[in-house]
Amino acid sequence: MWPLDMKISHNYEYRIKYSETDMMGFVHHSNYARLYENARWELMRKLGIPYSEIEKQGIFMPVVSIESKFIKPLFYDDEIVINTKITKLPTIKVEFEYNILSKSGNLLNSATVVCAFIDSKTQKVMRAPSFFINRLNAE
Amino acid sequence: MWPLDMKISHNYEYRIKYSETDMMGFVHHSNYARLYENARWELMRKLGIPYSEIEKQGIFMPVVSIESKFIKPLFYDDEIVINTKITKLPTIKVEFEYNILSKSGNLLNSATVVCAFIDSKTQKVMRAPSFFINRLNAE
Amino acid sequence: MWPLDMKISHNYEYRIKYSETDMMGFVHHSNYARLYENARWELMRKLGIPYSEIEKQGIFMPVVSIESKFIKPLFYDDEIVINTKITKLPTIKVEFEYNILSKSGNLLNSATVVCAFIDSKTQKVMRAPSFFINRLNAE
Amino acid sequence: MWPLDMKISHNYEYRIKYSETDMMGFVHHSNYARLYENARWELMRKLGIPYSEIEKQGIFMPVVSIESKFIKPLFYDDEIVINTKITKLPTIKVEFEYNILSKSGNLLNSATVVCAFIDSKTQKVMRAPSFFINRLNAE
Repeated sequence: MWPLDMKISHNYEYRIKYSETDMMGFVHHSNYARLYENARWELMRKLGIPYSEIEKQGIFMPVVSIESKFIKPLFYDDEIVINTKITKLPTIKVEFEYNILSKSGNLLNSATVVCAFIDSKTQKVMRAPSFFINRLNAE
Repeated sequence: MWPLDMKISHNYEYRIKYSETDMMGFVHHSNYARLYENARWELMRKLGIPYSEIEKQGIFMPVVSIESKFIKPLFYDDEIVINTKITKLPTIKVEFEYNILSKSGNLLNSATVVCAFIDSKTQKVMRAPSFFINRLNAE
Repeated sequence: MWPLDMKISHNYEYRIKYSETDMMGFVHHSNYARLYENARWELMRKLGIPYSEIEKQGIFMPVVSIESKFIKPLFYDDEIVINTKITKLPTIKVEFEYNILSKSGNLLNSATVVCAFIDSKTQKVMRAPSFFINRLNAE
Repeated sequence: MWPLDMKISHNYEYRIKYSETDMMGFVHHSNYARLYENARWELMRKLGIPYSEIEKQGIFMPVVSIESKFIKPLFYDDEIVINTKITKLPTIKVEFEYNILSKSGNLLNSATVVCAFIDSKTQKVMRAPSFFINRLNAE
């Protein structure tokens, strides 16, 4: 049976940096997109296909959409967990679902980031490569 | 009759900076949130209430959600126009709608950013201040 | 006579962005390097050789050193002037000297940034290209 | 005898993030200042006085100067070590010396960052607080 639903999940632990704050006293919202990116490439590293390898295979995975809800502020030196999930089989896109949690388990932010697969030579959209699909199915 | 629909619009012209690119050769997606912010505060400046004044009135306007679609890449030294619109009367939130266009008019990105109104002393959510509402209604 | 001293100078006007502040309430020091970069490429644009053209000629100009003195803080919405000077003829490197001034003329920051010239194909150091030297000498 | 020379040293391990690269293909120079900052506050955390505690004591430590030499490029996914040293007793300033090394021990960057001590209420310069000096002397 085709795996319509996947349950790939990874927790990325992170401590907020001073340069990520702004004069409101907490993390500026523009920093979250970088955190999501770092978290998803650590998920891919855990799966054995670090993003640096994906690019060496001639594939770019640019972001095509972001949706983010900023629920509670992140403060300097806070320790957070960025949970990343892949719950749908990739097609020409792959969707990463995020929940950022405090150490005590409070939900601080949730987001969805969609990446495309692009052939880095032709710059054309392509389907998720088989090594990528196979690795996800193996989980 | 109550103005359910507003048509406040502003064009912010911008030239892409080198530091905004990444090794894919175009602008890293994490930079767009800053561009939206700069564009909306220039809209507010045009309306006569720069955001620096709003904070002096004891009001923070943190971002509570972002939705962004990355349609075509932005390249170094490209000249773009960031169109910002307010089309709904603010309540406890205000919604900014964005279209980023190339000089030749191609749509490169569209986004919606929602800001809350927070009393900077109590850190509590508040309604859009009357000076803000009145200024929008006057347009 | 060989032009040992040059007096190429450019003023880049800039307004401080919200995302550039940190929780101390003023601009985080990590943002200045981007301001210097933007200012020097505007100087080069004024001279008729925008940096995007230099890269198209197969030349990279990476930064090889920075020295910066942070004299007074920059605040959100401040209007500043970044003065950039080239006072020495480039060799295998070119030196940019910066003074950041408030609207009222107070010195807020001074810096020196040195860029190398790199052949983008061979990744080797090269001398300043003749079109670059000639353009500076013409000033 | 007064400790003119100190040998406080800390290694901060770091993996280069995608968003830190630019279209030249390696880390944009503006990112190093953040790396130095993160490394020095991890040094202070190791000494038992995390910077978040220093600010809670009413003391800011803004950067007053940076000198940085970019010796070799840092590439995406590279694992690096940022060595931070304090070799002089703080006065009204404290000096952090940096060497960024590859996993194989090559020197990639060296830098010096000087921070001042500021009373966060009066915004006046102050001497290094005794708890800071004592902690360094205890090493």
